[in-house]
Amino acid sequence: MTKQPTLHDVYGAHARIKPLIVDTPLLASAELADKTGAQSVHLKLECLQHTGAFKVRGAANKILSLGDDARQRGVVTFSTGNHGKAVAFVAGRAGIPATVCLSEHVPAYRVEMIRNLGAQVSVKGSSQDEAEANYRELVQNRGMIPVVPFDDPLIIAGQGTIALEILSELPETQVLMIPLSGGGLMAGMAMAAKSINPGIHIVGLSIQRSPAMVESLKAGKPLQVEEKPSIADSLLGGIGFENQYTLPMVEKYVDEHLLVGEEEIKAGMFHLFDTHRIIAEGAAAVGAGIMLSGRIDVKGKRVVSIVSGGTVDTTAYLQIIEEQLERKTHP
Amino acid sequence: MTKQPTLHDVYGAHARIKPLIVDTPLLASAELADKTGAQSVHLKLECLQHTGAFKVRGAANKILSLGDDARQRGVVTFSTGNHGKAVAFVAGRAGIPATVCLSEHVPAYRVEMIRNLGAQVSVKGSSQDEAEANYRELVQNRGMIPVVPFDDPLIIAGQGTIALEILSELPETQVLMIPLSGGGLMAGMAMAAKSINPGIHIVGLSIQRSPAMVESLKAGKPLQVEEKPSIADSLLGGIGFENQYTLPMVEKYVDEHLLVGEEEIKAGMFHLFDTHRIIAEGAAAVGAGIMLSGRIDVKGKRVVSIVSGGTVDTTAYLQIIEEQLERKTHP
Repeated sequence: MTKQPTLHDVYGAHARIKPLIVDTPLLASAELADKTGAQSVHLKLECLQHTGAFKVRGAANKILSLGDDARQRGVVTFSTGNHGKAVAFVAGRAGIPATVCLSEHVPAYRVEMIRNLGAQVSVKGSSQDEAEANYRELVQNRGMIPVVPFDDPLIIAGQGTIALEILSELPETQVLMIPLSGGGLMAGMAMAAKSINPGIHIVGLSIQRSPAMVESLKAGKPLQVEEKPSIADSLLGGIGFENQYTLPMVEKYVDEHLLVGEEEIKAGMFHLFDTHRIIAEGAAAVGAGIMLSGRIDVKGKRVVSIVSGGTVDTTAYLQIIEEQLERKTHP
Repeated sequence: MTKQPTLHDVYGAHARIKPLIVDTPLLASAELADKTGAQSVHLKLECLQHTGAFKVRGAANKILSLGDDARQRGVVTFSTGNHGKAVAFVAGRAGIPATVCLSEHVPAYRVEMIRNLGAQVSVKGSSQDEAEANYRELVQNRGMIPVVPFDDPLIIAGQGTIALEILSELPETQVLMIPLSGGGLMAGMAMAAKSINPGIHIVGLSIQRSPAMVESLKAGKPLQVEEKPSIADSLLGGIGFENQYTLPMVEKYVDEHLLVGEEEIKAGMFHLFDTHRIIAEGAAAVGAGIMLSGRIDVKGKRVVSIVSGGTVDTTAYLQIIEEQLERKTHP
């Protein structure tokens, strides 16, 4: 029997992680309000969070909750993305040993970046699966504490702190638009927001190319879906066959699901760059993308959309922006 | 006899303008600390301020200080840049009539942008000088209230609020690096920071191509310097022959002056983009530029550098970034 995190847990998380996180700004977008007919649209800029993504909130809540014994044993994870960076950053700041398990194929600059943040790197195996086997070994045989990316009540409560910041600053918010993949961000934010204001409308934005959560909701159990490459790479991946928390919480708290296409995401990235001078990764541009395409009805509403991170490869990013600019100037 | 604004005036300004401005984030840059040997470097992100630049602080303080009679007469300015946008934004929000005088040569999209912010536009004449003549006419014959870009105690006190935000959040700051042109931002911030902590070290960053303030300080009076085009276009322009406030205040409060070159500015812009995912205009990248070039000694110090704005033309910006990326990948 598992116990879902509550609003009280999110308050606890906020107090715990405050010294380690940025209370990120809410930027008003008159342009997106204009395009959608919304009364107002604000963007919550988690791309300005430490390590460039919201993930540091959950990681901080998990790691700072550990007791002395667990702290001494240290934490371990196997993500190469925003979650891995977040664990390394928090452990480095809190002076807790952290190990990030990587395969031999992870580019050297990423290994270096994670080391610089303050984590040890354990390079083993030639695939992500072998890196994961190494991680399991460290958990089982060395007693290290696993920090999973989303399906953990403390991670979920940590991500939920974003909703507290939004509703403190803009209590009149009527619609929250939240990127959705494994569901840690969504479960935490939706639960916190609905607990404060049951009337708030929660929209989950998954990517068309890998809507694992939406398919799992339909099936009533965790499903694996075929994964096609997406520019919103942070939203790829399944929800885990052992999913205990995020699937039931997403089912309970989310009012509306939309699948966002690659072209919409690119248009969103360009709009955020061109209009607001914000560099958003694909996953963070789903909200702007769906608003620009006109596929969401938020007329007259007060909307907040989460810009979840800014981790993009410079060359790939510039290519998208140049392509969109070309299309805009020579349609 | 003119009275310079004081720290108390900056406190008054902060209370007055708070509802209209963003308390912009301070972003830690481990990379710039590493490059310079500083203990810490933080970037104050005024590029995320409403209208994309710090100018809204001074404009808000000036306009919200007006009495009922003056509010009814309305305000007027003739800037086409960040100051003009700021005046239009504040007047629009406060419901005070504002007129921005522009020449017939200002591109239509800029005219539209200023209108959308809530100002009237008075298009007259074929040069900036003629637009200014129109502005003077509106002040003298119609009794409209002029809002000048920098040499006004209320404008200066408004820009000084940035120093309050920095020293509230990072009271241990030892060095402030501030872009310098007309001197409104510098006069306000330097005065406020020195009044709180006389030991703080203030660095003024002018552009090599138009160091009007530095030349005026040497001459002991306002001087006009030859203006060459710069990618830091917000830092072009003189300090005004009738200068009353910013010249003596800069003389009194600034400890060190550096002139920043075009290549340094471009390198700064690229670094902010590539490392921090921040889109800075040229004027806002002088701090990063001078730190990267190694021409400033901040070893062991706690440094805050002001990223003053993000108003850049998309095409011109991408060209600079692509050029710098090319240089980095194929040196």
